[in-house]
Amino acid sequence: MPGEFDIIERYFRRPAPHAALGIGDDCALLQPAPGQQWAVSTDMLVEGRHFFAGTDPRRLGHKALAVNLSDLAAMGAQPHSFLLALALPAPDAAWLQAFSSGLLELADAHGIELVGGDTTRGPLNLCLTVLGLVPGGLALRRDAARAGDEIWVSGTPGDARLALGHLRGEWELSPAALERVRARLEQPQPRVQLGNSLRGVAHAAIDVSDGLLGDLLHVLRASAVGARIDVDAVPAAPDLAQQPVARRRACQLAGGDDYELLFTAPAQHSEEVLRASAQAGVRVTRIGCIEAEPGLRLRDAQGRSMPMEFASFDHFLQP
Amino acid sequence: MPGEFDIIERYFRRPAPHAALGIGDDCALLQPAPGQQWAVSTDMLVEGRHFFAGTDPRRLGHKALAVNLSDLAAMGAQPHSFLLALALPAPDAAWLQAFSSGLLELADAHGIELVGGDTTRGPLNLCLTVLGLVPGGLALRRDAARAGDEIWVSGTPGDARLALGHLRGEWELSPAALERVRARLEQPQPRVQLGNSLRGVAHAAIDVSDGLLGDLLHVLRASAVGARIDVDAVPAAPDLAQQPVARRRACQLAGGDDYELLFTAPAQHSEEVLRASAQAGVRVTRIGCIEAEPGLRLRDAQGRSMPMEFASFDHFLQP
Repeated sequence: MPGEFDIIERYFRRPAPHAALGIGDDCALLQPAPGQQWAVSTDMLVEGRHFFAGTDPRRLGHKALAVNLSDLAAMGAQPHSFLLALALPAPDAAWLQAFSSGLLELADAHGIELVGGDTTRGPLNLCLTVLGLVPGGLALRRDAARAGDEIWVSGTPGDARLALGHLRGEWELSPAALERVRARLEQPQPRVQLGNSLRGVAHAAIDVSDGLLGDLLHVLRASAVGARIDVDAVPAAPDLAQQPVARRRACQLAGGDDYELLFTAPAQHSEEVLRASAQAGVRVTRIGCIEAEPGLRLRDAQGRSMPMEFASFDHFLQP
Repeated sequence: MPGEFDIIERYFRRPAPHAALGIGDDCALLQPAPGQQWAVSTDMLVEGRHFFAGTDPRRLGHKALAVNLSDLAAMGAQPHSFLLALALPAPDAAWLQAFSSGLLELADAHGIELVGGDTTRGPLNLCLTVLGLVPGGLALRRDAARAGDEIWVSGTPGDARLALGHLRGEWELSPAALERVRARLEQPQPRVQLGNSLRGVAHAAIDVSDGLLGDLLHVLRASAVGARIDVDAVPAAPDLAQQPVARRRACQLAGGDDYELLFTAPAQHSEEVLRASAQAGVRVTRIGCIEAEPGLRLRDAQGRSMPMEFASFDHFLQP
């Protein structure tokens, strides 16, 4: 049975050329980056809460890093380094091999280096901390939305929630549909390139992790503004578009686990938003606009106002 | 029952004047610090593994941050910011109040700011990430020990293990002795000031978290050197000094959870080491020296060589 230090050496240690000092000391050391601010975020994933017991460890490794990269994306930051703290019930070689492969492949794809961590025994828990760089003053903050901004979202939110509903037995999908949306749940693609391209173009941004409306509310509160959302303008992938309208809307607006970017930009920047989208190869859609009047107003395709009945996901409010 | 965002607001949010942006966005933003390197470390504490179920939450808050500050101390870094990820079985207001008090009091004592985090439901797990600053090239690294260096240790290692033995039923202490050593186990004092004062004075440093000899072996391996340790030179606090000699030595040499600094310094720096010790108000003791020949040689007070029978603590090798 490998020990704590063997686990790090065998599965996670690799060169970290951008760090002054990587894994293996009390701390990692990172060089200063003149003119750049450091963006830092931490996210914890708990078995049975954020992922089902028995989740494919390769996909889990991907997702654990993806949700953290998504926080960097939402600030417009370029990924630089990350740390991994890992509690495992037992050191299972096959599991560790698959988990580290999924994790490090995504890390390589984004040029982010594992510079430190901690492994211990305990109920399965993954806690990652990511560090990124963003030119001073250009971060996409939640408090930067302004009345008149258009509200955009990337990709097709709701797919992950559609998969979750099947896995929880709330509804049933065909095997082919399940496979498609399950990949969206288990292997989200953090919108890092889009976030970077939106620096200087978008005002505010947030990643949709707790549900589109719930996350939008964070932006509205931080920016002291309101918004109108055209509910039926939110794009749906084919599998979601085929669902009953109430289910579709609930998945899109309150689903969570999407890791798409929700952002606001002044109307005169819409061409640049579309250029950033093309550059990143990620579809973006206008779904509403920021208004001076506080509160969130929902409107359907016929322009009728709708009740605000979609709660966001909160780990201590839901069972 | 408070929700996830309420927990952060109510118990953990406070001004972070040194951060460009603190709690409340996708990432915290930290200003660049010209000429300084960032030292970063993460540590995870699991209930039943790193602390007993039912541990006083105020002490636990202190300890969770202390063990992370100890990693900064061991690099000679000045604490700057930290992030807290927290999995809780349920949001217990009294527990959160006490935990955050213990945590934030130590944070204030060291001028380190909570800039971000994550709270979720799950088996109790505390994952902290700390960031500190150290002038470029002056960090105290594990790979910097040189033959001829003297080996020093701060404080009196072994007290935490003495307390743990009582709590595990391995031996029995008087109530007064237990209270003293239990404070050392549950409220370790990170040697931040000492670490800072040793920059430019010491060569290598590490914090004693897994046991003195085990941690020394990390230094020896990283520096490709060996060492001689005068086992009976390791200082013992009165409660430990009264124990049978085998128990005393085991606690001192393999105990773990001490969070003292083990460091090496050239012999001609011994006066400066003692000045750093006085400046920090922390006792330091010479316990051996670094030798060119690989391996670790133990010697008792009579100069007789002793067997290397003390294993370090490894979370996956011990039950």
